[in-house]
Amino acid sequence: MPTMSSKDRLESNHHFAVEKVCPSTSARAGWLNTARGRVPTPLFMPVGSRGCVKTLMPEEVAGAGVKMVLGNTYHLYLRPGIETIKSLGGLHRFTGWHGPMLTDSGGYQVFSLASLRSVSEEGVLFRSHIDGSEHFFTPERVVQFQESLGADVIMPLDHCPPYTLERGPVREATNRTHNWAARSLRALQCREQALYGIVQGGVFPEIRRESSRVITDLGFPGYAIGGLSIGEPKVVTLSVLEETVPELPADKPRYLMGVGSPEDLLESVARGIDLFDSALPTRTARNGALFTADGRRNILNARYRTLDAPIDDECDCHTCRAFSAAYLHHLFKTRELLAYRLATIHNLRFIVRFMDALRQSIVEAEFQEFRTNFLNRYRTTDEETRLAQKQKWLSRPFKGFDGSHSSQDTGIIT
Amino acid sequence: MPTMSSKDRLESNHHFAVEKVCPSTSARAGWLNTARGRVPTPLFMPVGSRGCVKTLMPEEVAGAGVKMVLGNTYHLYLRPGIETIKSLGGLHRFTGWHGPMLTDSGGYQVFSLASLRSVSEEGVLFRSHIDGSEHFFTPERVVQFQESLGADVIMPLDHCPPYTLERGPVREATNRTHNWAARSLRALQCREQALYGIVQGGVFPEIRRESSRVITDLGFPGYAIGGLSIGEPKVVTLSVLEETVPELPADKPRYLMGVGSPEDLLESVARGIDLFDSALPTRTARNGALFTADGRRNILNARYRTLDAPIDDECDCHTCRAFSAAYLHHLFKTRELLAYRLATIHNLRFIVRFMDALRQSIVEAEFQEFRTNFLNRYRTTDEETRLAQKQKWLSRPFKGFDGSHSSQDTGIIT
Repeated sequence: MPTMSSKDRLESNHHFAVEKVCPSTSARAGWLNTARGRVPTPLFMPVGSRGCVKTLMPEEVAGAGVKMVLGNTYHLYLRPGIETIKSLGGLHRFTGWHGPMLTDSGGYQVFSLASLRSVSEEGVLFRSHIDGSEHFFTPERVVQFQESLGADVIMPLDHCPPYTLERGPVREATNRTHNWAARSLRALQCREQALYGIVQGGVFPEIRRESSRVITDLGFPGYAIGGLSIGEPKVVTLSVLEETVPELPADKPRYLMGVGSPEDLLESVARGIDLFDSALPTRTARNGALFTADGRRNILNARYRTLDAPIDDECDCHTCRAFSAAYLHHLFKTRELLAYRLATIHNLRFIVRFMDALRQSIVEAEFQEFRTNFLNRYRTTDEETRLAQKQKWLSRPFKGFDGSHSSQDTGIIT
Repeated sequence: MPTMSSKDRLESNHHFAVEKVCPSTSARAGWLNTARGRVPTPLFMPVGSRGCVKTLMPEEVAGAGVKMVLGNTYHLYLRPGIETIKSLGGLHRFTGWHGPMLTDSGGYQVFSLASLRSVSEEGVLFRSHIDGSEHFFTPERVVQFQESLGADVIMPLDHCPPYTLERGPVREATNRTHNWAARSLRALQCREQALYGIVQGGVFPEIRRESSRVITDLGFPGYAIGGLSIGEPKVVTLSVLEETVPELPADKPRYLMGVGSPEDLLESVARGIDLFDSALPTRTARNGALFTADGRRNILNARYRTLDAPIDDECDCHTCRAFSAAYLHHLFKTRELLAYRLATIHNLRFIVRFMDALRQSIVEAEFQEFRTNFLNRYRTTDEETRLAQKQKWLSRPFKGFDGSHSSQDTGIIT
């Protein structure tokens, strides 16, 4: 953790301050000030879409070192309902997580999970993936929803089209995102919440650059890059980042939505990103894929059946301190629900330690060395496997309408 | 909790000592001495069949006040295997539960879960419910298995026939159980483990009495009553207890297998039982049925949707202290895995507090008052619903052979 001396350089009314910039990359270490405290950047936020980081209590999330979590407006709007959470004192009180929190607008979910009815300039009409009921989101309503939820950072409704090489639909969705961003700003009532702008533009550099300029001109306390990590090749993701980040103001936080593997976090930080969220570390955990400095380990592999040692002997998480790989292997084999929790605790702790070390290396002007050392050792999931996994996840069936019980619903696999 | 002064009256080499007997019922308060410490009786043991009290870490089990847990030889033999656990230092080290532990022999599971091939005097040939593989259990092997697992109290292989009004099969199974008990005693090598005898005899008083005499004559440090709570009417269960308990020695612990609802625990204690195990509190928790002093509450009931208060405002468990009924309702509605854990913590804590209060009432010679007060307030599940639930559970389909993933496997519902 950086020393407190850096605090002196922050003005308390600033939402964000850069502490140190890497001399040879765009990586930077900073601080984000929220109504519920200050958090260091680069920062990874685990996903608690439905008001719960899957399998964990809030104190376990904090115990893993997590400093900020994400909730999702689309999921919470459908269940338990925005008014219900508001009447129960807001999302912090409802969930028991009292640290900084960001809520996503639900734009991505409306366009990827829901059964879409129609998109117009006014807003988007969709059917719930749970019961098929019809709902209408507008930029104004989505801001109101998030004011009721009470997160510290909130996001405007955006139009995120699926990955495509067709320019037309991306152009249209980006223009709509811009109009909706302006309306979101005008709708904003609460001044304690930071509303970020979202840049869209698919894989087209010129649309990304234009979107960056339009959104930046509107003036937000932070900028998100949406519409990436949705199935495009990784080299494209990074190239779009390289085109987009220089267009964003240096004194505002940059948030890359939906990125969460160690290697992607590292390469995105090198390109100037400060904030991240992704379900990847927790979702892969529930699939039995556990992070180590050498790469992901599949706990169901037979070599762990009798291993009387932690899955990762460099880790200080509760799972690694208290349980052997053999026990974890057994819990996964027998599908004990405890398995998914123990794995989640480990993966979150790994990512937190990784981000802490990465930030420290920036502060100490050793980022490039950290990056090289990490990548030399960490064996990444190959591109083909990665895209296949992503595609499998994106095309997963939703069995919501009849309310049937499935592993989908329990979230074990997805 | 009883005061330490009662400790003076115990001799350390005694497995069991009675501290106080109720003047008007057969209820008694006592102490069980095991290699891993002394536990008060009457005592309820939650079930951790596969080396894990479902959804919980060992410290959460202990945190709920649980003093002794149960593991199952059948399940652990199939996965991860007895030799695997032995090579990993025994069941305590493998699971991280370092308090007193009892292992069931697996007799009940072989006769209820497995696909039975044949039973002979020598032993029982069965097919695994997981992969259909064939296995042979003998009384001697089952003792050896449990010596390898290393629990503090172990059980002999018994023949537990399904609930029937036919005398023939029960007579035969009981005789076999007697022979197997004698062979188990002869096979015993480890003197730090207490091997209990098991009384069978179905719903037939004279077979129960005879079984009690035969098993008692063999001489065990404790006696279990098996083959009850397997679908017979509750009035029959209690009547069989009344016939059986007086035949068992007063200075040895009496263990009623498979009983775990508050009202059944209470009535069995009144009839002289000291030890219990059952999956009921944890299984009902995963089904959303939560114990309160007024009876079970169904968390999915709409009245909990907006209740900004604990599900049980008399409870000191972590779930009731940290989370509202509304949040728990939401987690169950959305099938978040955290739901099953929060409910399990509550139900275990309820049963522990219930048993502690019950014991205290015996020590203070107020058991009858406690019993009357509890039963006046607690609304029990009616007999019809209870038997229907039990039948549903006993006849649940096992989808093991193809290794398919189902809610059955995850143990959420069952």
